[in-house]
Amino acid sequence: MPEEASTALRVALAYHAAWTTKDLDLAFGYVADDIVCDAPAGRLEGRDAFRAFLAPFAQLLHSATLIAAFGDEDKALMMYDTSSALVASGPGAEFLTVAHGRITYSRFIFDRVPFAAARQAIP
Amino acid sequence: MPEEASTALRVALAYHAAWTTKDLDLAFGYVADDIVCDAPAGRLEGRDAFRAFLAPFAQLLHSATLIAAFGDEDKALMMYDTSSALVASGPGAEFLTVAHGRITYSRFIFDRVPFAAARQAIP
Repeated sequence: MPEEASTALRVALAYHAAWTTKDLDLAFGYVADDIVCDAPAGRLEGRDAFRAFLAPFAQLLHSATLIAAFGDEDKALMMYDTSSALVASGPGAEFLTVAHGRITYSRFIFDRVPFAAARQAIP
Repeated sequence: MPEEASTALRVALAYHAAWTTKDLDLAFGYVADDIVCDAPAGRLEGRDAFRAFLAPFAQLLHSATLIAAFGDEDKALMMYDTSSALVASGPGAEFLTVAHGRITYSRFIFDRVPFAAARQAIP
């Protein structure tokens, strides 16, 4: 990423790099206590709820590849692919708002279909 | 959007505005003949296949609201919410590459779960 990346994009990329390498303590240092995340299954409120949502997937993650990332002073938008024990290619997109160096809002999109199919296939 | 929007972002936004207002002829004027689209259900190759994928949803669309859009000279990334006859809130994200004013590649992410549920509920 370019050095002139915006404030919000720098935070978003640091958060992304941390959680996709399983350093959740570092990742959640970039997350506001009162974050709101609109995820496919519904709204998550607060850092603990958001971490409880993300941590099990981070455990199963093999790798993540950034497809694109853009931002301005207070917003960032990222798309990436993930490879995990559940799904070989499970892309996601996140729109993040950032204030005072912390992520305050996340709109998180991914297709739940292959993940649900993988979980059903577990005996 | 700002007037200084990049080339790719201007094309992406014009395409988006057109298909979300059901002007598919205008929208697909921004799409290259040999577009490749990686959608949740798999790869679509060529403008006709891509249009056949998007047209039924455009017919059912009530409205679309842009959440964020960024781009540079040859790439654009958008996230938006959609409200349709099938799903009240069905957000999507698109990463587009643009060459010579036409969209040549689309990576398209949305959660198929609520759409599949809505289709199953149709008697």
